[in-house]
Amino acid sequence: MALECRDGGVDVKCSLCGAPAVFERKFSGIKLCRRCFMRSIEDKVRWTIGKYKLLERDDYTLLAVSGGKDSVVMMHIMAKIESDFPEASLIAVTIDEGIPGYREVGFKIASKNAKLLNIPHRVFSFKDFYGYSLKEIVEIAERKGIPYHACTYCGVLRRKILNVKAKELGVTKIATAHNLDDEVQTIFMNIVRGDVNRMIRVLSLESIKHPGFVPRIKPMRLIPEAEIALYAYFKGIDFYTVDCPYSQTSLRNEFRVFINEFEKKHPGMKFSVISFFEKISNLLLNSMPPLQLKECKYCGEPSVKDVCRACELLEELGLLDF
Amino acid sequence: MALECRDGGVDVKCSLCGAPAVFERKFSGIKLCRRCFMRSIEDKVRWTIGKYKLLERDDYTLLAVSGGKDSVVMMHIMAKIESDFPEASLIAVTIDEGIPGYREVGFKIASKNAKLLNIPHRVFSFKDFYGYSLKEIVEIAERKGIPYHACTYCGVLRRKILNVKAKELGVTKIATAHNLDDEVQTIFMNIVRGDVNRMIRVLSLESIKHPGFVPRIKPMRLIPEAEIALYAYFKGIDFYTVDCPYSQTSLRNEFRVFINEFEKKHPGMKFSVISFFEKISNLLLNSMPPLQLKECKYCGEPSVKDVCRACELLEELGLLDF
Repeated sequence: MALECRDGGVDVKCSLCGAPAVFERKFSGIKLCRRCFMRSIEDKVRWTIGKYKLLERDDYTLLAVSGGKDSVVMMHIMAKIESDFPEASLIAVTIDEGIPGYREVGFKIASKNAKLLNIPHRVFSFKDFYGYSLKEIVEIAERKGIPYHACTYCGVLRRKILNVKAKELGVTKIATAHNLDDEVQTIFMNIVRGDVNRMIRVLSLESIKHPGFVPRIKPMRLIPEAEIALYAYFKGIDFYTVDCPYSQTSLRNEFRVFINEFEKKHPGMKFSVISFFEKISNLLLNSMPPLQLKECKYCGEPSVKDVCRACELLEELGLLDF
Repeated sequence: MALECRDGGVDVKCSLCGAPAVFERKFSGIKLCRRCFMRSIEDKVRWTIGKYKLLERDDYTLLAVSGGKDSVVMMHIMAKIESDFPEASLIAVTIDEGIPGYREVGFKIASKNAKLLNIPHRVFSFKDFYGYSLKEIVEIAERKGIPYHACTYCGVLRRKILNVKAKELGVTKIATAHNLDDEVQTIFMNIVRGDVNRMIRVLSLESIKHPGFVPRIKPMRLIPEAEIALYAYFKGIDFYTVDCPYSQTSLRNEFRVFINEFEKKHPGMKFSVISFFEKISNLLLNSMPPLQLKECKYCGEPSVKDVCRACELLEELGLLDF
């Protein structure tokens, strides 16, 4: 948590360098000055990349950047890390789903930060790729009485564009800015939905090697959301906080509130949850046959079934246009 | 939830028999009269026993009975089920840990209900078995500065007496009255502690076959706590609600509150959690080598390590007296 500078009248010192501390990491008790705090975040991302072997020295990585704080901070940290690896390179990609009044600010921020960091920045839109914006797709689904939420279309169709464009760009990894809180919330959501198959599918995807599937990495998955926000604030990074008009936040928000209250009382709980599922995941992955991907009969993209989920959704809407 | 008998001025009818309903099961929408509600609980216990193959037709089952509502209801339901299986038999066992002012009421209720149901009832005490009551053990631990909580000694030492006495009595199964809420709370507690090893140990114990280890079953694990309380109320069963003076309830209670609030908003969530971990458990158990039990070098009881946990705790206290 961000610290007041005086603790009982005495300056609180950074546990590492003795400078005035501005932050206390509750689960470890460590107090940090601004500089050491920021370095600790960058080091944690470096550590995550190393421990999980997320990147090779010569990877060409697509950073999926919405313009929100997590993805903008990821750009800054990845740019810093990449500067130590001359053979590595980065490109930022923003997907324009077509959500009027929502994405515009994000684009500007993503583009501004990409320029600042000297990272090429590309924008790809649902409209250009699929022929329809998310807004149009949601309206068609509503007219047809198809009960999926906008988030279903958005997630599936966005991941498909990213994979296709990653291959066109010659990219070798796709990095998303999921943070520790996102990961813990997702775990709890899968549990209360009883959805083991989804968890296993995601795990299997993470471990899959397939020529048509660009591996996805989450270098920020061990950084708490609040620390990313503080990093952005210290770094003076602009980000936007407009909520998506379609956002389906109720279940995730319930967990956000509970998990944050719980973390306050039991600091370190978020890491324990991640650690629990990491151990289970390793056991499960070792016990399962590797996932076999086919090629979607419509678009040729890698798919578990004969038709990929994106084409399946579009077909149901009568929008499949291959 | 228990129903008011009038819903907008119209009597609510039992979904099964049309009699006035007294209870609505939120996750299924089914409304039940008193008789159908009670039968549904008994049928669910029967179903649990059948689905998980908890009992054979000729099992001699030890019912671990504290006198609390869960264990007393278990006695009543198990007596009813057992009456259909002439080769099966039951015995109720209460462990007197030695917690002054706490257990006495429980004994009387356990004994009264056992008599009523014509089930033999035996009491075994820590004092007779180990030479020390739980109160004495906790005092010694405090004097020695050993940081374990009373619940650690209580649980480990109680399970050991149950296993030893079960074998002396010639019993083939030990049934405990854990309910759905207990199970879901335990799952969440293991998750936030990151304690996969504990979960796997418990799973492995459940599946283990070892001549010195009497299998433990939980026939009530799919019955929500609130439904057990309502069953006890309808059946006119006395039970006591005194809290154990040692009870370490903070973490479990936090989850109890959260889970119950969550279940209200998302009926059926408790079952989803159980189902999630059942699927994971099956996958994990299939992928693991079976747990090999040794015999404790002090007491001969089955143990994962050379010394069983009970002897280890007593040795640390200087109380090992074999």
